[in-house]
Amino acid sequence: MNAGPARLPQSHVTLEYCRELGVELQVFTNQNANAYIYHESSAALAGKPMRWRTAKADVYGYISELLAKATDQGALDARLTAQDKERLIAFLQSFGAIKGKADGYAYTGTDRRGYSVEPGAAFDDGTVLGPVPTLSDVIASGVGQRFAFEFGYDQAMLMFQPVGGMDAIPYALAKAIGQNRITYGAKALEVKDLPDGAEVTYKDAGGRTRTRRADFVVAAMPPMVMARLKHNLGTDITAALKYAVPTPVGKIGLEYRSRWWETDEHIYGGITPTDTDLATIWYPSYGHQGRRGTLIGYYHFGADAVAYSDLPHAQRLARAVSRGVKIHGDKYRTELDHSFSVAWHRTPHIEAGWVDWPSQTGPEYKLLNRPAGHVYFAGDWLSHVIAWQHGAFTSARKVVTDIHERVMAA
Amino acid sequence: MNAGPARLPQSHVTLEYCRELGVELQVFTNQNANAYIYHESSAALAGKPMRWRTAKADVYGYISELLAKATDQGALDARLTAQDKERLIAFLQSFGAIKGKADGYAYTGTDRRGYSVEPGAAFDDGTVLGPVPTLSDVIASGVGQRFAFEFGYDQAMLMFQPVGGMDAIPYALAKAIGQNRITYGAKALEVKDLPDGAEVTYKDAGGRTRTRRADFVVAAMPPMVMARLKHNLGTDITAALKYAVPTPVGKIGLEYRSRWWETDEHIYGGITPTDTDLATIWYPSYGHQGRRGTLIGYYHFGADAVAYSDLPHAQRLARAVSRGVKIHGDKYRTELDHSFSVAWHRTPHIEAGWVDWPSQTGPEYKLLNRPAGHVYFAGDWLSHVIAWQHGAFTSARKVVTDIHERVMAA
Repeated sequence: MNAGPARLPQSHVTLEYCRELGVELQVFTNQNANAYIYHESSAALAGKPMRWRTAKADVYGYISELLAKATDQGALDARLTAQDKERLIAFLQSFGAIKGKADGYAYTGTDRRGYSVEPGAAFDDGTVLGPVPTLSDVIASGVGQRFAFEFGYDQAMLMFQPVGGMDAIPYALAKAIGQNRITYGAKALEVKDLPDGAEVTYKDAGGRTRTRRADFVVAAMPPMVMARLKHNLGTDITAALKYAVPTPVGKIGLEYRSRWWETDEHIYGGITPTDTDLATIWYPSYGHQGRRGTLIGYYHFGADAVAYSDLPHAQRLARAVSRGVKIHGDKYRTELDHSFSVAWHRTPHIEAGWVDWPSQTGPEYKLLNRPAGHVYFAGDWLSHVIAWQHGAFTSARKVVTDIHERVMAA
Repeated sequence: MNAGPARLPQSHVTLEYCRELGVELQVFTNQNANAYIYHESSAALAGKPMRWRTAKADVYGYISELLAKATDQGALDARLTAQDKERLIAFLQSFGAIKGKADGYAYTGTDRRGYSVEPGAAFDDGTVLGPVPTLSDVIASGVGQRFAFEFGYDQAMLMFQPVGGMDAIPYALAKAIGQNRITYGAKALEVKDLPDGAEVTYKDAGGRTRTRRADFVVAAMPPMVMARLKHNLGTDITAALKYAVPTPVGKIGLEYRSRWWETDEHIYGGITPTDTDLATIWYPSYGHQGRRGTLIGYYHFGADAVAYSDLPHAQRLARAVSRGVKIHGDKYRTELDHSFSVAWHRTPHIEAGWVDWPSQTGPEYKLLNRPAGHVYFAGDWLSHVIAWQHGAFTSARKVVTDIHERVMAA
């Protein structure tokens, strides 16, 4: 089974397996109103980190103003009845916190933006964060383009992560199956379909070549790795395996001596998307209020991931930190203690974060979802939920069910 | 200190106190895409629970369609440049997942709505939840009126709750101060300002009347309770204390034999707002994947809270459950094991969930924020963050600072 990213959506399949396996979960927060959106190449407000809450207040405010104006002026009368219009404007006043008709439904800011001085005791009624950028600048900043992320079926709250890390799932699976049934450190060299079974030749942890035979083989390697294996399954299989497109993915962990993002910036979990080559910065969803903590300093794909992975770690780090200080200031460098980076596309036996298919309706994908004699393929890459545990679990279950039915029918 | 509701916003003041006091926190999730919005009196879609994710997909889809149409047709040319228009439409296509210009920017649904059959292995590409209600019905359903809740400064993610319950905070404070310095079970009867101090007369836990004298007294009782105390602080003080308007608030806890909202409906934390007299149903933010769990079956204010509190518990329960089954079905009744309800406005010494001030700039509020001789007032009700721990902490700090400065200057 390929491992998906280190968080789980509310996939009931994954959650049921975790419960059955005794994998302890904790809430993963990929949304946080106090995290930033950072665009340094935007047409306006470039280089100014904007809190999610502020970005939403301004974008929702201005689009509410615009739509209320257009509705009120009759521009949408072909689409809206008088009653629709009245209800729509009532919604927009709530959604955007805009002024009334007499003030042209103007958006002029709201405490949803946040405060420069928080309200408190007695006469401290707070100072709302200002000034409010113009409509044109807010649109040109592009911050609104980030909002759809959290509407995605896979990304909406609530999410989970296993306590102790994502590998808690394979460890729990190994325990449930019995460690003695698993051969670790075995590098597959060849898969052979036979008239009445299949066999795998591999190099064991001690470097010796061994062959094992079974009624069936389930190959759960990434397809581009499997494609290079010696096999007798036919050239169509090789071509189909190569048809999957590996996605380069990189991450860097930055361990800090303090949790300055919590104490100084009030960011507890969540993500700061950027238009830099970091792609995103992720704040930890656990260990809140602790003494130390680890950020994900980049989590990027494609060309950015390749560019960073071409560098030695020290240069990856220097480059990532130089971007981070633009958002979080000098402490991003001065509080740093340790770091670790990974480029999945350069990791042996994995060679990608995940794969994409140019088509999941064409002959290649179809071919791999059928057994090649006594050899089956499984993994998130043979699902419609690629890169998530849900895809790996459902694929595994599908293949096991297929084999079960085949044996029962024989 | 009055206790705020059982959750904390990202108030750095509250979080700093919790850290200093060693109060362990866990994430509180008051947003969840899988929770419902339930409107039974709406002009359309009445009585059909709608998932938050579905409601957002439809509302954001349709308002994006409308605004893109109006923008494209030039209805907003007085407010938007050609470049603004182009960028705005690009945003709306992302925000609403709408079709392109050739298709009139139509919203026709998206997988953001959720699935009736989830995608999975091999050829299971999922069935997107349908059918998509009409624009007119979505607007008339009023679901969009619920969205602004989570944009509020106090309500946006991320939030926390103390592990074990909100009273972990007063217990931690008591421990830090020293339990031996606190007299429990003491009912205040009288407060007297004296030329060189103040004294409090109270009935102790054993029923004996006692008087204690100190340099200063800080009265942290709710104002309407304090107003009935015998005192020599003047009639203006009594009038000012009575000026605060107590808010009736009720809650019911429903303990279930199973966590059916998780296993059957995939709701892990979050809130279902309703237009019934329940106001809201809250799913627990902790104990996920456990064997049993407790919902908040209503959390309501004002007239609803008064109506329920007039009933004995068994009738409160029956009424609350009869509403809940309309959203969640029979298991809302059949899986129920225990229950408990509280009406804060009927709870001795508390008498409200919190108070509101008709004005926080008038003479009454001002008067109570000054000492009455050697008697000070403190509590969330003397802050601009009423009903939250932040208000209580900042008020306490303010009063302690005032006394400190007074003593140092003397």
